[in-house]
Amino acid sequence: MMQKASDGKPLILVTNDDGIKAGGLVALVNMLTELGDVVVVAPNQSYSGMSHAITVNHPLYAKKVREKKHLTVYKVNGTPVDCVKLAINQLLEKKPDLVVSGINHGSNSSISLHYSGTLGAAREGALSQVPSIGLSLLDYSYEADFSEAVVYARKVVEKVLQNGLPAGSYLNVNVPEVSPLKGLKVVRQANGKWVEDFIERTDPRGRTYYWLTGRFENLEPDATDTDEYALSQGYVSLVPCHLDSTDHELIPQLKEYEL
Amino acid sequence: MMQKASDGKPLILVTNDDGIKAGGLVALVNMLTELGDVVVVAPNQSYSGMSHAITVNHPLYAKKVREKKHLTVYKVNGTPVDCVKLAINQLLEKKPDLVVSGINHGSNSSISLHYSGTLGAAREGALSQVPSIGLSLLDYSYEADFSEAVVYARKVVEKVLQNGLPAGSYLNVNVPEVSPLKGLKVVRQANGKWVEDFIERTDPRGRTYYWLTGRFENLEPDATDTDEYALSQGYVSLVPCHLDSTDHELIPQLKEYEL
Repeated sequence: MMQKASDGKPLILVTNDDGIKAGGLVALVNMLTELGDVVVVAPNQSYSGMSHAITVNHPLYAKKVREKKHLTVYKVNGTPVDCVKLAINQLLEKKPDLVVSGINHGSNSSISLHYSGTLGAAREGALSQVPSIGLSLLDYSYEADFSEAVVYARKVVEKVLQNGLPAGSYLNVNVPEVSPLKGLKVVRQANGKWVEDFIERTDPRGRTYYWLTGRFENLEPDATDTDEYALSQGYVSLVPCHLDSTDHELIPQLKEYEL
Repeated sequence: MMQKASDGKPLILVTNDDGIKAGGLVALVNMLTELGDVVVVAPNQSYSGMSHAITVNHPLYAKKVREKKHLTVYKVNGTPVDCVKLAINQLLEKKPDLVVSGINHGSNSSISLHYSGTLGAAREGALSQVPSIGLSLLDYSYEADFSEAVVYARKVVEKVLQNGLPAGSYLNVNVPEVSPLKGLKVVRQANGKWVEDFIERTDPRGRTYYWLTGRFENLEPDATDTDEYALSQGYVSLVPCHLDSTDHELIPQLKEYEL
């Protein structure tokens, strides 16, 4: 089952995890309004590292902060996944043709997609059976230049609006911090890990505390079919992802566990 | 590469997302102390729905609240994933032989694993290259009876301590709310979705707000090889999961996206 845009101007839902004022979101929205009707439903603050989290302990408010032709903007006191859920279930008059999340300030390649609110939102779009794309630029700075990233984002968005995506799949697109970009590669998620995860300090009351930090390590540096490799060579990486977490190959091996 | 317990008494790291006082955690720990040295590093409060979220905006504190032979307990002001990271990187003297997360009060079958803090912690264990298991009982109540769930949890834990798990894989185990349990099935993640996701209300100041709620719908009710089916028949479901989110079948289809 392919899910495609309906006839006419597509309805595009946009969110992110850096909050409604982030430069990556603004750059993305400016481009998308040339392609369709855009509704932004994004967090009112930064929700980095929120993964696929949902808000269960307080209610959500959605405030419309802008409305003009082809662009409506809401801010929500919730996570990126909350934003997608609330948009599709409550705020939008019809199901969107596409969910685009980003452009994130910072990488979501390899295993980082598991921690990423940007990719959480794209995954939630797929769970809602809407073609969905997560976009990230490998530059954490607030003033990052998204101009080249937007050119590639547009090419991917146009393809997905045209072709749809199979149900259960979504795209994780990362853009390296090089200029000019060399092109785009369709690749798999590299196997990696985070190391040196914490800084340990002592507070004024003598108690030890820990700040999360860390450094990414590519565990398969010799593989040339991964997102990490493509990015290292100056290419945009596109990883098709799936909602099914099952390790299908392991099922027959674990049959002896049955009782 | 299989990752196995070292010789001697295994070191077992336990966490959850319902917080350190939850009945499911206590029942699990009581059982695990018969199998190894147990260190609990768990949230100081409920972190349900936190998925694979990490804390980036405030530092973490770990408070040792209990220490006796074969059992040490810490509480942390962070998410389940924070707890696993902090334990493995800072609090434990050696890498654990096993991470067990749960027993969650409520289901984490099918796509619910994407929202689950319990499974986030198990996934983080796998990312840290430790064999890891997420355990859940399909009973949300605070007073849920975990006695039969613990019997099956023990069987799975013993198998994993004996055999290890392939790198990159972790287990999602759900226990139905029936007695007696019929057995255990090794199955795949069912395709499902959440519907009717919000309750809409008006606050005393006239503003609309939304509470997240919803009802799970199995999108493949006729399939007999899924976790949802096994649970509906009174069996414990065991789904082997993988850290690799790549939709490998889609890569060749998307090669035309390359630039």
